Amino acid sequence: MHSTFTALFTIVLSTTLGFAQNLIPDKADKDSIMIRSIYDEALVNGQSYENLRSLCKDVGSRLSGSPEAEKAVEWGKQVLDSLKFDKVYLQPIDVPFWERGDREFAAIKANKNMSLDIKTLGGSVATNGRIEAEVVEVQGLEEVKQLGREKLEGKIVFYNRPMDPRPISTFESYGGCVDQRYWGAVEAAQQGAIAVMVRSMTLLDDHAHAHTGSMGYKEGVTKIPSVALSTQSANQLHRQLESGGATVILDINPRTNENVKSFNVIGEITGKTYPDKIITVGGHLDSWDVGEGAHDDGAGIAHSIEALRILKSLQYQPHYTLRVVLFMNEENGNMGGKGYAAKSKEKNEFHLAAIETDRGGFSPRGFSIKPMNENQVGFIQQFAPLLKDYQLHHFEAGYAGVDINPLAEEKNIVNPDMFMLGLVPDSQRYFDFHHCDDDVFENVNKRELELGCAAIASMIYLLDQHVKQLK
Amino acid sequence: MHSTFTALFTIVLSTTLGFAQNLIPDKADKDSIMIRSIYDEALVNGQSYENLRSLCKDVGSRLSGSPEAEKAVEWGKQVLDSLKFDKVYLQPIDVPFWERGDREFAAIKANKNMSLDIKTLGGSVATNGRIEAEVVEVQGLEEVKQLGREKLEGKIVFYNRPMDPRPISTFESYGGCVDQRYWGAVEAAQQGAIAVMVRSMTLLDDHAHAHTGSMGYKEGVTKIPSVALSTQSANQLHRQLESGGATVILDINPRTNENVKSFNVIGEITGKTYPDKIITVGGHLDSWDVGEGAHDDGAGIAHSIEALRILKSLQYQPHYTLRVVLFMNEENGNMGGKGYAAKSKEKNEFHLAAIETDRGGFSPRGFSIKPMNENQVGFIQQFAPLLKDYQLHHFEAGYAGVDINPLAEEKNIVNPDMFMLGLVPDSQRYFDFHHCDDDVFENVNKRELELGCAAIASMIYLLDQHVKQLK
Repeated sequence: MHSTFTALFTIVLSTTLGFAQNLIPDKADKDSIMIRSIYDEALVNGQSYENLRSLCKDVGSRLSGSPEAEKAVEWGKQVLDSLKFDKVYLQPIDVPFWERGDREFAAIKANKNMSLDIKTLGGSVATNGRIEAEVVEVQGLEEVKQLGREKLEGKIVFYNRPMDPRPISTFESYGGCVDQRYWGAVEAAQQGAIAVMVRSMTLLDDHAHAHTGSMGYKEGVTKIPSVALSTQSANQLHRQLESGGATVILDINPRTNENVKSFNVIGEITGKTYPDKIITVGGHLDSWDVGEGAHDDGAGIAHSIEALRILKSLQYQPHYTLRVVLFMNEENGNMGGKGYAAKSKEKNEFHLAAIETDRGGFSPRGFSIKPMNENQVGFIQQFAPLLKDYQLHHFEAGYAGVDINPLAEEKNIVNPDMFMLGLVPDSQRYFDFHHCDDDVFENVNKRELELGCAAIASMIYLLDQHVKQLK
Repeated sequence: MHSTFTALFTIVLSTTLGFAQNLIPDKADKDSIMIRSIYDEALVNGQSYENLRSLCKDVGSRLSGSPEAEKAVEWGKQVLDSLKFDKVYLQPIDVPFWERGDREFAAIKANKNMSLDIKTLGGSVATNGRIEAEVVEVQGLEEVKQLGREKLEGKIVFYNRPMDPRPISTFESYGGCVDQRYWGAVEAAQQGAIAVMVRSMTLLDDHAHAHTGSMGYKEGVTKIPSVALSTQSANQLHRQLESGGATVILDINPRTNENVKSFNVIGEITGKTYPDKIITVGGHLDSWDVGEGAHDDGAGIAHSIEALRILKSLQYQPHYTLRVVLFMNEENGNMGGKGYAAKSKEKNEFHLAAIETDRGGFSPRGFSIKPMNENQVGFIQQFAPLLKDYQLHHFEAGYAGVDINPLAEEKNIVNPDMFMLGLVPDSQRYFDFHHCDDDVFENVNKRELELGCAAIASMIYLLDQHVKQLK
């Protein structure tokens, strides 16, 4: 696109205030002005990108239980302390400590072995030395049942069903595919298989990196090793099988250690009107032990901290207490989310709202609302006209997030009319990076991240100002 | 984000048809089914990404008048021929042929010169050997007038006003900044300056690559050389000036050749009901001579071709003739757009609608509508409910595009109620790549590109089906 047309767009810039007023010419009410100020602060003075850089580069990947996760806790505490919130504290929890081994090898056996790109799936047992077996390719759990012990005993089962490209939200594609990663080992072991390889959960159909993630076992079923294959290697293995079969060599040595003490990291700005009622926002501080956990969920950490920093920097005095929670152990256990909810219940904490951000640092589209009563979705949709100029358009019933979900469980609930929201960024690129070596700082765009921070800060502001009108 | 929550999203997959029906459960009318089919075709069988790869890699950058642009014309003709549209033809036009030279050097003069990253601006004259002068930094055209001849005679003027980060649409930021690139040389020459350096038009505030673009001269005003500086080099030069001044050495040898014969490349699917009335969609085939012209506007070329391919592959028989136009010379002259409009007027061609795509290959947000009458914006907004599930939400009055704009000029107009639409993708990353070495295929995401194709094909379908209802 060339330049001359842009004269049509040209706007007169003067002072910051003049500019802000230009952008909201005919609705210069209090809410519009505040939201414009929030976006200006995020886009002009934003600290989210630098915080994300520091988390990714100074700490790096940070799987629960690891020394790096401990370092992330210190990092989070330090960042919150530096922002001089009214309270900053650590909330102790126990977390699992699974470790990838120093051996992670797979190859198609041949005169000259052809190595495959793998990542051990989180929670997997070791092979205890090299194993070798014929491979049987399947499209999913059902096919494993159908093939049965006769075809699968002693074999390595290769789950190769790709993510469906048709859903517009890639999370829907993921949801339709991830069963084979999570339950693949259980299903295959029940038919006598000795290991499982799973096509990576990504829509990139020729990607060099394997995408890890959690997998499960079931009591009473033999635990067999389970790895993700890059889609490139999955395609290679598929072609090898088409041309007459393949034997694969597999050698991984992960281990599960004793549980470890860890922490959720929490900061608060005390509410002036209802100090005992809370609006919580959070993401998860842990990540898989690959890449740098930049989109998953460094972005959510940066979003959450920045949302409160923005409001504080604008000298906004909230009615409710605003709390940021950096949850530990979302990826493999959710002990942070569960622990937070249990302790909230113990203290009878009233949550007005809980907001989660754990879908990457991409351009925000809106919020997904877990409806706790029939009025909530409509109530949130009333904010849509105020947020339209910021390209937020999605305010629909849906899932809010893994970390805040335990707050809404019957055993934990204090406020049955609590709002439960999840930030919804554009999802197209999420699974290009998810749980693989490419989830690094360089793949997060500064402005896209900043717009997410501003979207969350705006939603917190609107809830803080308007929820009392609901009932 | 981890996996177990996704059980909540899990959808039952069966056949393609079953799947498509799942996605449109309660509005299975003709339009919804067709739009779902369009998206399925784009996402499952899409050819846009491969076409873009081929244009970027087999042809590369393709500035008007160059041998590469000629190759791009052949490429376009070949691709359209291969799709077996009802007509494929070349429309001759004359285009300018400006060439970057083989010398492009700038440095801050010092004991050991410090070189600066520059790109000659399109249309600039040469320095005719090395020139050397003191640099004066300004924030814009107005400041040049104020400083006047006394301060600027014999100097190099350095325009360093950055793009404003506050507007949500980055095109608005661009529109508020690009005057200094386009008119900087004229304004500075009028005050006796001998050359101009302009901070690159990008929101990346520390970018290593200079971003080129067009610049203008004015009859009667001395033509002085004009280059873009990378923001990194602009920051360096700024700091040097702060610490006591800087002399810069500049040496560029671009040249403007005689005009060259070139072509718009056109393909058509003949309408069954109104073969003489046309819905045109297009982007521009030329690009700057840096990077690969991937987002600008390889993406628009891929979008436009794919939109018609999708409709043809679905055996859709349009009421109106659907025409794809690969415009030549958008970047520095717009002879393709002007020539197309003039020839359309000559033949008295009735355009029902013209759609342009020239804002990159990012996730689509909607369409910008140049209103030709007072009903059009509202009319297009009626489609919003059908497009909501595809995350299209922006249907607002605005600019449509450089290439189709001449169709709406008074001297060319045939149908005063013609629809004029421009695709609006998410704009956050556009100026990271625009007119610089980073505008390469690898920076375009496959799904984001495909969604743009489907958005355009859906809009063409809806216009083709429903415009007759307007009046």
